[in-house]
Amino acid sequence: MTDAIDYQEIFREIVSGFTDADDRGDVAAYIPELGKIDPRKLGIHLTTVEQIHYSFGDSDEKFSIQSIAKVLSLTLALKILGKDIWTRVGVEPSGSAFNSLVQLEYEKGIPRNPFINAGAIVVCDILVSCLTDPKVELLEFIRETSGIPTIDYCSTVAESEKRMGFRNIALVNFMKDFGNIHNDADLVLDLYFHLCSIEMSCKEIVQAFLFLAADGINPVTKTTVINSQRSKRINSLMQMCGFYDEAGEFAFRVGLPGKSGVGGGIVAVHPGKFCIAVWSPKLNENGNSHKGMKVLEEVTTKTKFSIF
Amino acid sequence: MTDAIDYQEIFREIVSGFTDADDRGDVAAYIPELGKIDPRKLGIHLTTVEQIHYSFGDSDEKFSIQSIAKVLSLTLALKILGKDIWTRVGVEPSGSAFNSLVQLEYEKGIPRNPFINAGAIVVCDILVSCLTDPKVELLEFIRETSGIPTIDYCSTVAESEKRMGFRNIALVNFMKDFGNIHNDADLVLDLYFHLCSIEMSCKEIVQAFLFLAADGINPVTKTTVINSQRSKRINSLMQMCGFYDEAGEFAFRVGLPGKSGVGGGIVAVHPGKFCIAVWSPKLNENGNSHKGMKVLEEVTTKTKFSIF
Amino acid sequence: MTDAIDYQEIFREIVSGFTDADDRGDVAAYIPELGKIDPRKLGIHLTTVEQIHYSFGDSDEKFSIQSIAKVLSLTLALKILGKDIWTRVGVEPSGSAFNSLVQLEYEKGIPRNPFINAGAIVVCDILVSCLTDPKVELLEFIRETSGIPTIDYCSTVAESEKRMGFRNIALVNFMKDFGNIHNDADLVLDLYFHLCSIEMSCKEIVQAFLFLAADGINPVTKTTVINSQRSKRINSLMQMCGFYDEAGEFAFRVGLPGKSGVGGGIVAVHPGKFCIAVWSPKLNENGNSHKGMKVLEEVTTKTKFSIF
Amino acid sequence: MTDAIDYQEIFREIVSGFTDADDRGDVAAYIPELGKIDPRKLGIHLTTVEQIHYSFGDSDEKFSIQSIAKVLSLTLALKILGKDIWTRVGVEPSGSAFNSLVQLEYEKGIPRNPFINAGAIVVCDILVSCLTDPKVELLEFIRETSGIPTIDYCSTVAESEKRMGFRNIALVNFMKDFGNIHNDADLVLDLYFHLCSIEMSCKEIVQAFLFLAADGINPVTKTTVINSQRSKRINSLMQMCGFYDEAGEFAFRVGLPGKSGVGGGIVAVHPGKFCIAVWSPKLNENGNSHKGMKVLEEVTTKTKFSIF
Repeated sequence: MTDAIDYQEIFREIVSGFTDADDRGDVAAYIPELGKIDPRKLGIHLTTVEQIHYSFGDSDEKFSIQSIAKVLSLTLALKILGKDIWTRVGVEPSGSAFNSLVQLEYEKGIPRNPFINAGAIVVCDILVSCLTDPKVELLEFIRETSGIPTIDYCSTVAESEKRMGFRNIALVNFMKDFGNIHNDADLVLDLYFHLCSIEMSCKEIVQAFLFLAADGINPVTKTTVINSQRSKRINSLMQMCGFYDEAGEFAFRVGLPGKSGVGGGIVAVHPGKFCIAVWSPKLNENGNSHKGMKVLEEVTTKTKFSIF
Repeated sequence: MTDAIDYQEIFREIVSGFTDADDRGDVAAYIPELGKIDPRKLGIHLTTVEQIHYSFGDSDEKFSIQSIAKVLSLTLALKILGKDIWTRVGVEPSGSAFNSLVQLEYEKGIPRNPFINAGAIVVCDILVSCLTDPKVELLEFIRETSGIPTIDYCSTVAESEKRMGFRNIALVNFMKDFGNIHNDADLVLDLYFHLCSIEMSCKEIVQAFLFLAADGINPVTKTTVINSQRSKRINSLMQMCGFYDEAGEFAFRVGLPGKSGVGGGIVAVHPGKFCIAVWSPKLNENGNSHKGMKVLEEVTTKTKFSIF
Repeated sequence: MTDAIDYQEIFREIVSGFTDADDRGDVAAYIPELGKIDPRKLGIHLTTVEQIHYSFGDSDEKFSIQSIAKVLSLTLALKILGKDIWTRVGVEPSGSAFNSLVQLEYEKGIPRNPFINAGAIVVCDILVSCLTDPKVELLEFIRETSGIPTIDYCSTVAESEKRMGFRNIALVNFMKDFGNIHNDADLVLDLYFHLCSIEMSCKEIVQAFLFLAADGINPVTKTTVINSQRSKRINSLMQMCGFYDEAGEFAFRVGLPGKSGVGGGIVAVHPGKFCIAVWSPKLNENGNSHKGMKVLEEVTTKTKFSIF
Repeated sequence: MTDAIDYQEIFREIVSGFTDADDRGDVAAYIPELGKIDPRKLGIHLTTVEQIHYSFGDSDEKFSIQSIAKVLSLTLALKILGKDIWTRVGVEPSGSAFNSLVQLEYEKGIPRNPFINAGAIVVCDILVSCLTDPKVELLEFIRETSGIPTIDYCSTVAESEKRMGFRNIALVNFMKDFGNIHNDADLVLDLYFHLCSIEMSCKEIVQAFLFLAADGINPVTKTTVINSQRSKRINSLMQMCGFYDEAGEFAFRVGLPGKSGVGGGIVAVHPGKFCIAVWSPKLNENGNSHKGMKVLEEVTTKTKFSIF
């Protein structure tokens, strides 16, 4: 049914409707590599579960997907460890960033969910424990899941993040003190920083995340990435915790599970229907792509596909 | 379409599947009136937007709906004040209860969302400012919305809550110190405690909440309770913030927007399809009805109606 | 020995040394009565344990002693209840004001010390429990301790504080929720607000506090106010917790146990030697009298009487 | 005058008065080296400013002085940098350990005082910035200050602390994120862990700290360690912040500025009179030597030398 909608036309309408007022926000600049990106970039890609593709603008250009990658590392950890993972990290939204540390202290080093930094670091620790060569095997998993063998880390970005990642070093050591990090802090962070450095285009992101719109099965490769129950768990986690301190606003405006990254990318999933990725580097005050949010909001408004 | 499903049969299956292991948790007992309830009570009621009714057990028996009522006061405040309400209360999940006070301090007396106690108290303050006789007019609104003229406060429960409500008195005064409560603290709390004391049956709750499944229009009375956009806002808020510290778990297990109360009631909405209410007084450690969660989980599993 | 020092001359030197730069800070204005005080007022009074008096300026003019009075209520509670009081309130400094609520939550409603608001309120609760007519008996105790029968509450100030005291109402109810307030919140706060409204001159304060310089015995009236051990306890508490978030700075600059109030008064004790009170209404950013701190610093510098 | 007191006799009385009830608490065991110490060790040494020595028990045996050393690093930093140091670290007590992180976050990475771990780490960062070979020069300073050329680090203890010091690694990186650590985190921690590993006997500690009892001048070597004003600052800091969450209790029971370490040592200073060090490895629940506290309390009680 969904293929009856001309998303291509919808994208065109949305973008042509942008005014100067929409050209706001700032490109993330805490590491030099992100700051260099052309702020005018705009890419959109949507693929339905029936594998019909719609795209717009810079949808084939690779960018730093940053926190979007945390969904893929979680998928692998969940596949390996199953529900035991939830003894190490929670499934609840986290309140404001300010509270993250006091919350971590109060809850004895157990992060609230796998998408805040502390939680994604615990997921990396789990992968380091379970895999022989974590960096290589995680990349292989992402390549297989997406069916795209050229996906890769950007070591320049990973190194930059490592050099500036004092708060993340603090987090991993704080949790290690509570016994919730089992491996060497440097090893865990090396995996974490590489994870965040992955570069993909909107089209590639959609291909890698399409299994979440299809009960865990990648419709392209026909392989089961993860079982249906766990696919549902990941979607509900993206719904509740995917947008930092703007999860409630995103739920209202877009009404779909999704995940954003400071590189300006956002991926969203309509279970049973489609997966969509948008990229526009300028971020709003909550660290989410300003135009990316706008595009997704308009798509669900025009198609009436919000789950609410 | 939804009427094709025999919910009656599904309810029967679910309840007959309950084992001794499901008979756990404790009835809320912080006020005497709640502690006296027969813990074996179990009521379920579902009405589709086409107004087909399915019910089970004690679905016609009134009970204290407690925090479920916060959705109705919010609806009225939103109807009156529109989006200006969001300058007084946020739309984001709140993290753990422990953090509520430090969060309130850090965010200068602005509660995270209208369903935590502090937020529901601010909503009551707004109603006290806007209405001539808040207690009477709020009740009238709920009676009209539901089309049930017999819905009423329970003054015994309201008085009991007032006598024990030290933390709520602390909250209202703390926010008053920040300038986010504009009326006399006692007046605001009187409305708040009365709101929480409302008694309704599962069937009545469904009738009062059905507009949220039908874009803001009550299908029974054909009247517009609130516009479509605001109905969507309320649903997204219930999704993100309706279950205290178990919102993520509920999103995964049930996958529908909903709201629980310590009286053992839960209401959930499937936008475009139906509204369902369950009542079972024994609460799990997060203060949500143990069997209520279970029933809703099974309903969405068996009907595959989870939004994820 | 101490009588050999000409404090009168020292006071004159200090005050004549004040420059325009010292005329800074703001008079407390959160209640109208305090805001009306002439900011140029300056009073100093020192009495040695041998009862030699030295005074300067407006030392005979009564002003609102505010938090200075908390030492006197503590003295009475300690006299009545003995060390059992320490199960209800701690003896340690409290860190910044920001933390007071989270600390209170973390420590289950037990305030860190009897001089922060929460602690002084608990002390009032203890007095309400132990006394038949707390307001009358507390005043009598203060009159007896000082030997000054005219000391009195200022009901205008007490009423004003009550009208604006939302944070204190929050505190008392928050602690009541934890079970650390045993009486009606309004009764406790009525005593608390009256306590803070007491009006005394510098000379009268010194007379009331002189027992702390003399092992618990008022050298004027020769009566034992409290035993030597408890007098030492009160002095150590003033040393550690008497100056809000400036206790460390005061310890360094003045080096004597003391207590300040937002009315601009400060009392300090040199155990075995003297008691001194200063009054100057302009407060620094920590809520302590700017010139009051300066006078005390100079006195200890010039007399080399700092304990460090 | 002080030499008139027979401290030797007082020590004997105190120790002979110990009962089985005093033999409680646990030796610190978070690093193996500390856990191996014979818990029955007991050493006391007191030297007056006139250089009269009194000692008891194991007063000549070296032990790990741990946090006591933080006073010496602060002394060196204060000597080099002067009051500019107070832009990097505060002078106020810190409230409970629980709050340290939220406080650090709230106060933008500025620790409350130089004796909590975060503050001592900032002091080490200052030394790393100012010195060419910090570890060597700090040790030289301590040797000169004390006049004892054999004082040394214990590299085994330093290495152990480093291996287990996750919370300290978290702290240094957290502060680096706020810009309050200027050097490489590993370099700073290396100095910090070595500082805490210093081994000294009670007698040696007293010799190193005697300048604080004598206005900044070591009476033995006649050299000025630091000026009188700064010596007073250090004493007031020890008074307010020297005993973790037991500063208030220590102020009351002992009434002297002092500093404890988890190795079971405590040093206390009576400005103008003497310096005393006690060592007994069993710690109370606040991490301070149980018998050490007891000895100091009895000494001030018997000599009536408490400052209160």
